[in-house]
Amino acid sequence: MTQGSSKRPLILVTNDDGITAPGIRNLVESISDLGDVVVVAPDSHQSGMGHAITISNILKMWPHDFGAANIKAYRTSGTPVDCVKLAIYKILDRKPDILLSGINHGSNSSINVIYSGTMSAAVEGALEGIPSIGFSLCDFDEHADFTASRGVVRTLTQQVLQHGTPKGTCLNVNIPKVAPNELKGIRICRQAAGHWADAFEERKSPGGRPYYWMTGNFTDIDSGEDTDEWALRNHHVSVVPVQYDLTAHHALAELNQWNLRLED
Amino acid sequence: MTQGSSKRPLILVTNDDGITAPGIRNLVESISDLGDVVVVAPDSHQSGMGHAITISNILKMWPHDFGAANIKAYRTSGTPVDCVKLAIYKILDRKPDILLSGINHGSNSSINVIYSGTMSAAVEGALEGIPSIGFSLCDFDEHADFTASRGVVRTLTQQVLQHGTPKGTCLNVNIPKVAPNELKGIRICRQAAGHWADAFEERKSPGGRPYYWMTGNFTDIDSGEDTDEWALRNHHVSVVPVQYDLTAHHALAELNQWNLRLED
Repeated sequence: MTQGSSKRPLILVTNDDGITAPGIRNLVESISDLGDVVVVAPDSHQSGMGHAITISNILKMWPHDFGAANIKAYRTSGTPVDCVKLAIYKILDRKPDILLSGINHGSNSSINVIYSGTMSAAVEGALEGIPSIGFSLCDFDEHADFTASRGVVRTLTQQVLQHGTPKGTCLNVNIPKVAPNELKGIRICRQAAGHWADAFEERKSPGGRPYYWMTGNFTDIDSGEDTDEWALRNHHVSVVPVQYDLTAHHALAELNQWNLRLED
Repeated sequence: MTQGSSKRPLILVTNDDGITAPGIRNLVESISDLGDVVVVAPDSHQSGMGHAITISNILKMWPHDFGAANIKAYRTSGTPVDCVKLAIYKILDRKPDILLSGINHGSNSSINVIYSGTMSAAVEGALEGIPSIGFSLCDFDEHADFTASRGVVRTLTQQVLQHGTPKGTCLNVNIPKVAPNELKGIRICRQAAGHWADAFEERKSPGGRPYYWMTGNFTDIDSGEDTDEWALRNHHVSVVPVQYDLTAHHALAELNQWNLRLED
């Protein structure tokens, strides 16, 4: 790494569990010597926000004391994607060299990527041409052990600072809930086919009106050994390249055989 | 279409502009004779919600009078994706034969698909194995003219009831803002590469605290003539097959060349 603060990489950090979550603190501590770190993160829990942005309401933003002299930090009232946009278009005076999102408390493997605020922040970074990584630890506990995760974050951040990311992608990194000495290594994977069977638990308000809590069970319906779910079950870190071009190119020819004449 | 109410297709309808928006009314009126229609839609504007779901808060749901005797309707406090999940796992006793989302007031072409509540509802339907279409009219006006859109909705709904959708996809349909007789036809397209340059307009609260409104300018940075943006500029309806497997399969080989050994 080149010495001298003007040559140090600018590292933008965000998450979806909120700026006070242990996951983002562990992320920052793992990489703070690799560059100049700026944290822009939600002021409260924003899990499940997907790629939501705040376009019909106002956004607020406050400087935040991250408790480390060399870390600039801001918390916002917005979603993770709002935070990335605020960082790029309002806070920073140059484009970050890398964007790191997480470490999420809970898995974002398989189809969970699509609901994930952590990963949507990374996708937004990629859209802006910034090499971006989302990190998730497969442990929802607020007091999860991030020891193994810290080495993973550091290794992948260094690799991406060196190589960038493949064109049009960001990286979805999931870390199994195991002790550091049980971690078998890092595997490049595809997203497993998975399905959520949802349920809605009905309760009654004190006034007798019904309301609902969403719950659900995830099933891995993919028997492949090249998937993120397989890697995690077998104590590997999974790395999936995620693209933001949602076009199903393979389906174009099939659709061109339909009769799409408009009725008169 | 087979006669007899038990054989009629079950059509689930949602949107992101809210259940009282003119777009969803025009959609329902275009296809209500093609099957049994159930509407489950947000009770207020939910644009820009992407694939957000409500997992840290409660959901409410109310029966809604859609003003047509044969249309069952519910409004919910949730996002468009919440509405799809509530419909499938709480309201309906069988799987819908088709899901229609929209008609959105405003374009969801190019990269806008990723922020769109309308399209996320369609993606959620596809995840559940339901042939799903999102419709958007390129006109943000609440009093937009949906005359041309109605024929487009009807044609594509009939085609999808007949063919289903290509495996692992839903359809993103955008309709240009033109009179019906200026509509040149329907084109199968890929998503154009586009970019939003955002800006944040700073204002002060009555108490003197800063807050921000997100604004921005979209640029089509794609010169291809096979894109949705090209089709719309040239008065065609664009149909893009959208996939929910976000894996960038083409990038797997490149990543496998990295040194991903964890430090000891």
